[in-house]
Amino acid sequence: MSSKIKVAICGYGNLGRGVEKALSNPANCDMELVAIFTRREPKSITPVSDVPVYSTDAIGSSLGSVDIQIDVLILCGGSAKDLPVQGPQFARMYNTVDSFDTHARIPQYLELMDNAAKDTEHVSIISTGWDPGIFSIERAYAGAFLPDGKTYTFWGKGVSQGHSDAIRRIPGVKNAKQYTIPIESAIQKVRAGENPELTTREKHLRECYVVADAEADRERIAQEIINMPNYFAEYDTIVNFISEEEFNEKHSAMPHGGVVIHSGKTGDNKQIIEHSLALDSNPEFTGSVLVAYARAADKMYKRKEYGAKTVLDIPPAMLYSDEIAKELPKKLL
Amino acid sequence: MSSKIKVAICGYGNLGRGVEKALSNPANCDMELVAIFTRREPKSITPVSDVPVYSTDAIGSSLGSVDIQIDVLILCGGSAKDLPVQGPQFARMYNTVDSFDTHARIPQYLELMDNAAKDTEHVSIISTGWDPGIFSIERAYAGAFLPDGKTYTFWGKGVSQGHSDAIRRIPGVKNAKQYTIPIESAIQKVRAGENPELTTREKHLRECYVVADAEADRERIAQEIINMPNYFAEYDTIVNFISEEEFNEKHSAMPHGGVVIHSGKTGDNKQIIEHSLALDSNPEFTGSVLVAYARAADKMYKRKEYGAKTVLDIPPAMLYSDEIAKELPKKLL
Repeated sequence: MSSKIKVAICGYGNLGRGVEKALSNPANCDMELVAIFTRREPKSITPVSDVPVYSTDAIGSSLGSVDIQIDVLILCGGSAKDLPVQGPQFARMYNTVDSFDTHARIPQYLELMDNAAKDTEHVSIISTGWDPGIFSIERAYAGAFLPDGKTYTFWGKGVSQGHSDAIRRIPGVKNAKQYTIPIESAIQKVRAGENPELTTREKHLRECYVVADAEADRERIAQEIINMPNYFAEYDTIVNFISEEEFNEKHSAMPHGGVVIHSGKTGDNKQIIEHSLALDSNPEFTGSVLVAYARAADKMYKRKEYGAKTVLDIPPAMLYSDEIAKELPKKLL
Repeated sequence: MSSKIKVAICGYGNLGRGVEKALSNPANCDMELVAIFTRREPKSITPVSDVPVYSTDAIGSSLGSVDIQIDVLILCGGSAKDLPVQGPQFARMYNTVDSFDTHARIPQYLELMDNAAKDTEHVSIISTGWDPGIFSIERAYAGAFLPDGKTYTFWGKGVSQGHSDAIRRIPGVKNAKQYTIPIESAIQKVRAGENPELTTREKHLRECYVVADAEADRERIAQEIINMPNYFAEYDTIVNFISEEEFNEKHSAMPHGGVVIHSGKTGDNKQIIEHSLALDSNPEFTGSVLVAYARAADKMYKRKEYGAKTVLDIPPAMLYSDEIAKELPKKLL
């Protein structure tokens, strides 16, 4: 067996811990975690794995005192502030994988990353995870196999971090979690091949669990949520106030998922392709996807296929070690 | 726009007609059908498209009098008898795409095709379609993203050609159609993450619609079906005798479909990936998939990536023309 792929994690939040967990899976024993980078004080972090923790500044300064080999750096920072800066910077130093998910900015980010990676002969796989990521793959296949068709994506039931954060910024809110819930009757119509035109409100509803300060005006908080532009105003929103105990007991997990349905035709025949995810832990699943693409990044680097790639550029077999990939036709076809 | 990809069809049965229909779709206007080859007397065939029909012997004799450019030959023959002969023979002359689906023989067929294609600098994409094909892709992705998991495949509800043929070979049977039906309670258990051990009988049942000769002993026919080894003996089988009129009215279509469920874990968290197809016309859908891979075969040929490939070797973006592929990150990610 060839030597292990040396992987480092940049950003040790929920996603970083998900990546760490995936790397500890015996099925990923062709990779090894060699370092964790954090923007926080490294000493404040106690990783589950027995690996050194460094400041991200150590990468910024052309490694500084960090003298370890890294084959792939998995970027686990946020898409709003971290990745737009870290991505193009670190793509000049290492092969990278990330889950950049600001959909509208992906073409621009792809170009920045492509320039950085090509200039320095690295590979960067961007926007992995499940949407963008797996759902993008499913939309691409479905559209290729049934070009005469319409693709619908429904998200949830699951926790939206962005919407939960937006609620927590309202004065008087102590804690909050928002669930995006797909509207079942809409899914049924799509699945039946009716190709409905659906408004935002007809596709999803939003349910919020809020812990308010004792003295806060709950009616005001509820109205601020329901009418919040971009986040809630276009949806039907349910607001539940609950105690901190109930919140901690029932709303600590981070489930998510969703479904992509492509409703196509060949002549007069309906042809439906459907893909769904039901995830008990969104960050652990996303972490596991990032790790699979880290293997692909290492392979592409060794083949000198430099530049930035998306999941659409990567064949399924490349997510496996060469040894296992060899056996796939026998096992999976 | 570059010149169109010239495609020919070899074998003009249900699948060949499905391919012809897909090629007539405006979304596939980067390809054009240039010829149909048949083992039958070419004059006996009236294709829907206005293209010449030749005998397959014309290919066998190094084209003989057929003097047309063919970029990709789509092999639409059967996996039992046609493809094992035609595949390796025609892969020496053209880039090919097929839907070879005898699962157990795929590694051997892949090797034969790889030798033929590499020797002569062609590309052959084998075993496309939906199983093997799309379902193989889904099993590959799911296993890569959740290596700690178990994959289940259920087929149906749909018509099994092989089982229908087997019934038709029984003396006294005039016509027959067999539907493979997945057992819903088994699917539910898998979907719930229970990871059950399921016997063949617990996964699918088989329902048959049989038109018997007037004088035939129906009880004998039913017993022959139910006890037929390999085809029915391991399953619960329902046999319905119906009139020829009812048969023609209700059982002329060729629907199929199925579901692949991967029940995985990250630590203690359940993570379920599911993919399903609900097809009103199996041959038209399969034809449409073959056409998408014909585009990929032409691309790989132009990149000199010679040899035999499976769907696992082909990135999703390669199923699109370069022009459209460029826009995919913006549209699908």
